Amino acid sequence: MDEFEFIGKIAKGVPRSAEGLILGIDDDAAVIEGRGRDRWLVTTDISAEDVHFKRTWAGWDIIGKKTLLTNVSDILAMGGLPWFYFVSIAVPKNVREKDLLKFYDGMSSVAKEYNMIMAGGDTTASVGKFFASITVIGSAENVITRSGAKAGDKIFVSGSLGGSEAGLYILEKDLKGNKALIDKHLLPTPRLKLARWLSEKKCASAMIDISDGLVQDLTHIADLSRVGFNLYAENIPIDENIKSLRSRVNPLLAAISGGEDYELLFTMNEEQRERFEFDAAKIDFGCPITMIGEIVEDKTRRRVIDSRGKLINVKKKGFAHQIGGK
Amino acid sequence: MDEFEFIGKIAKGVPRSAEGLILGIDDDAAVIEGRGRDRWLVTTDISAEDVHFKRTWAGWDIIGKKTLLTNVSDILAMGGLPWFYFVSIAVPKNVREKDLLKFYDGMSSVAKEYNMIMAGGDTTASVGKFFASITVIGSAENVITRSGAKAGDKIFVSGSLGGSEAGLYILEKDLKGNKALIDKHLLPTPRLKLARWLSEKKCASAMIDISDGLVQDLTHIADLSRVGFNLYAENIPIDENIKSLRSRVNPLLAAISGGEDYELLFTMNEEQRERFEFDAAKIDFGCPITMIGEIVEDKTRRRVIDSRGKLINVKKKGFAHQIGGK
Repeated sequence: MDEFEFIGKIAKGVPRSAEGLILGIDDDAAVIEGRGRDRWLVTTDISAEDVHFKRTWAGWDIIGKKTLLTNVSDILAMGGLPWFYFVSIAVPKNVREKDLLKFYDGMSSVAKEYNMIMAGGDTTASVGKFFASITVIGSAENVITRSGAKAGDKIFVSGSLGGSEAGLYILEKDLKGNKALIDKHLLPTPRLKLARWLSEKKCASAMIDISDGLVQDLTHIADLSRVGFNLYAENIPIDENIKSLRSRVNPLLAAISGGEDYELLFTMNEEQRERFEFDAAKIDFGCPITMIGEIVEDKTRRRVIDSRGKLINVKKKGFAHQIGGK
Repeated sequence: MDEFEFIGKIAKGVPRSAEGLILGIDDDAAVIEGRGRDRWLVTTDISAEDVHFKRTWAGWDIIGKKTLLTNVSDILAMGGLPWFYFVSIAVPKNVREKDLLKFYDGMSSVAKEYNMIMAGGDTTASVGKFFASITVIGSAENVITRSGAKAGDKIFVSGSLGGSEAGLYILEKDLKGNKALIDKHLLPTPRLKLARWLSEKKCASAMIDISDGLVQDLTHIADLSRVGFNLYAENIPIDENIKSLRSRVNPLLAAISGGEDYELLFTMNEEQRERFEFDAAKIDFGCPITMIGEIVEDKTRRRVIDSRGKLINVKKKGFAHQIGGK
């Protein structure tokens, strides 16, 4: 079954909020009561060998960095800042101590950059592959959820899309490829400055980071916000490095359904857009910000439209792990 | 290398406290600033197939129950109560959907018992074995750490020891064995009532749950408290069911170094002991509570003594995962 079907089954009947819990499952992170006006955010992500990475693709420091960065990205996408991280690992005999220390060094360098502290974890043996499960706790005064998008809001995305998917293709096919694409896959650059600005200025009505793929993640926003969307294909910022792979990778499909770009996908209402255009005009966020569509009331409408107004048939919304068997 | 050596290496230089973080690595759970007078506790534990359990040993509901209960035990051992849990799983193709749902049902039944809510997680594929990493968040007004034991404090343990180790032996050798021992291994019963009493009455100077083994876990208390200990072998409450395995399992060694009994190991100073003897005399904690030793000032003294005052040579302090290679 695919992971989203399964999550739907186990999530049935689970309360979304309760005493002490402001927001449970459904979003990038859980929100619990915090210190003063701030709330704590809690997120957790697995990195599994030969599912999320192969040892031949990168050094263990890079694997450590990416594992922690994907969690940081979740916290930023909630409008928060990361504070503490917990590292649980299951280690097979064929991982050397020095490689394991590199894995932790990679995480430490990310922690230094984001001013985070390792606050716990678990260390165990593994029969077979290497697994890491990271939990990050962050905080936010203004939490940005997936559920706040309203009809009329415009949809924005940071940076460009599809590069991570193309980088993964190069790694999997062992091509002599474009290093920028490989880096895009191996080393996400969470959009700290933009995420902070949107949170501090309360300038996004909903936000998520793109880990599963543009349409899949926008569908998460649409589901939780009970709305539909129109995406304008010609507006979608496609990573220009993909051109070098044009004969093998369809750039638009990579941008629409490729996972792990870790760009910010967010919606703004009219008032927020006005403030954004006025206040943010002179700010260098370190990445382009592109309007790619709009939220519509009819929640059954989830459309990608080409420049002539024709529907593009999106067979694959994004990446979903196939877990378990029948 | 063994996990404790490795943890020593990665823990070097990591701050134990910081803004918002009252207690970092080193204890059963991290302690972060909370709601009002309460602090949040955060703990995380992995359950790895063929390391922590074999599928042939028990149903998936039991595996789910134990995985969550071991985390609950950590929260209780900090003087807290569990509130929320996060479940990250990596699932190979040979786990059926109905078994996975049983795994979650097992956790749900524990959650119901302890009034906990599932607040997040991650679901991914696995190449090879099944892995689960659980994070539990609890809270405590009176946190009981590992570091508060002082010379002169007496050492106490709940219930009896060695049963889980003996149960594991029966399972591994596939013996027709004592069901009580197997249950002791598969289904820990965290000592909720005792833990709550000790926390509410501030009646323990240090506490830990026995997951690695009596001497190993007492060593954790001694290391953090910078003290030594004398354990009286004849006082140690050995699980009486082990008698049936006497020809195969040494009862005292199982009690001293066997892991996963999930009993509470705690220390009390004189004033706390007086209050305990006076107040708790009429309370049924559902388990015996036994004085098994005392804390001494000399931190190099870590002794187990027999009834004639002779030192018992403890070669194996408890269980340590062997992780990775050279």
